[in-house]
Amino acid sequence: MTKISIIVFSGTVDKLMPVGVLASAAAALGYDVEIFATFWGLMAFRKDMAEKNTKISKEFEEMGEMMFKIMKEKNVPSWLNLLRQAKEMGNVKIYACAQTFDMFGMKKEDLVDIVDEVVGAGEYLEKAKEADISLFI
Amino acid sequence: MTKISIIVFSGTVDKLMPVGVLASAAAALGYDVEIFATFWGLMAFRKDMAEKNTKISKEFEEMGEMMFKIMKEKNVPSWLNLLRQAKEMGNVKIYACAQTFDMFGMKKEDLVDIVDEVVGAGEYLEKAKEADISLFI
Amino acid sequence: MTKISIIVFSGTVDKLMPVGVLASAAAALGYDVEIFATFWGLMAFRKDMAEKNTKISKEFEEMGEMMFKIMKEKNVPSWLNLLRQAKEMGNVKIYACAQTFDMFGMKKEDLVDIVDEVVGAGEYLEKAKEADISLFI
Repeated sequence: MTKISIIVFSGTVDKLMPVGVLASAAAALGYDVEIFATFWGLMAFRKDMAEKNTKISKEFEEMGEMMFKIMKEKNVPSWLNLLRQAKEMGNVKIYACAQTFDMFGMKKEDLVDIVDEVVGAGEYLEKAKEADISLFI
Repeated sequence: MTKISIIVFSGTVDKLMPVGVLASAAAALGYDVEIFATFWGLMAFRKDMAEKNTKISKEFEEMGEMMFKIMKEKNVPSWLNLLRQAKEMGNVKIYACAQTFDMFGMKKEDLVDIVDEVVGAGEYLEKAKEADISLFI
Repeated sequence: MTKISIIVFSGTVDKLMPVGVLASAAAALGYDVEIFATFWGLMAFRKDMAEKNTKISKEFEEMGEMMFKIMKEKNVPSWLNLLRQAKEMGNVKIYACAQTFDMFGMKKEDLVDIVDEVVGAGEYLEKAKEADISLFI
């Protein structure tokens, strides 16, 4: 079994897109997918943020409007919908980082329903060490 | 055979430098090198951007001038020339991400000549899973 | 033996935190840990920067004050102390990137004492290829 493990640190839409694209492409290939959302990446999974997030990398801010316009015109699915599709297709687990969760005083119900579980950094490592591809995004 | 696989997401010069340095060091060691340029990282490979790019990470913008001055004084090769050298030395493939390519309506002739091929995320995964080191930059 | 290898490119506190957290969690699990600090990531290890660094990712700058307040209230250890703890617990090596070191004219005594050695990109690769998890932060 092939496995990809992704730490999602960044909470900007441009960096969440490759998370969604890689997760759904990997699920389509039958890979196990493990996503570990931490810091601003975990914030992006808050119910009150997930849909209305329009942040993009500061260095390319001037291209944000064009990017969102193209994504709308071409019906590019959002990162959140890509992750939903990935979960429907295959074995895709989304974990919230316990350290971030505690630090920011989050509750499980604050997070979108595709988040499976809250796990610590040690647990992430024990899962990631078995992965064929591990990324920090 | 040892293989390194790098997703190049970021399009700022400071983050493109480690791509060039790692690719040329890996080629010198006889590793296979696969680079998968996506999003702002693919934009950096546009003919009209590649040479004149002076973007650097926003958090360190105040150090940009000093950085470019030092690089000029010390004749540090550009990320683009490091990649060219790497390609001359060894087995270095540079792929353009199909999703980004389509989304931004790019043509193959828009990109610098060191880009080998346009491939999808699934194809990247199938290559990267065999790599000894995989990074997202 | 399990090994994690992390390139620390970014020098903002929010990105240095996961370096510290992962290193100490990995050391607690008995993993070998190799950290390769480069560019802004290496600057963060300068004696005159390490303690007083308050930079955070530009996209989330408005949350910086809250983050630092929470970290203080909850006594969250700094990334530097997490790395110190990790080094006391296990086999944790911190390497300075030779290219960055030379480019910015650094001296070994400019860097905090937890930095073990200056090594080139090729040496990093030869170590990282044996790692079970490799990340670029």
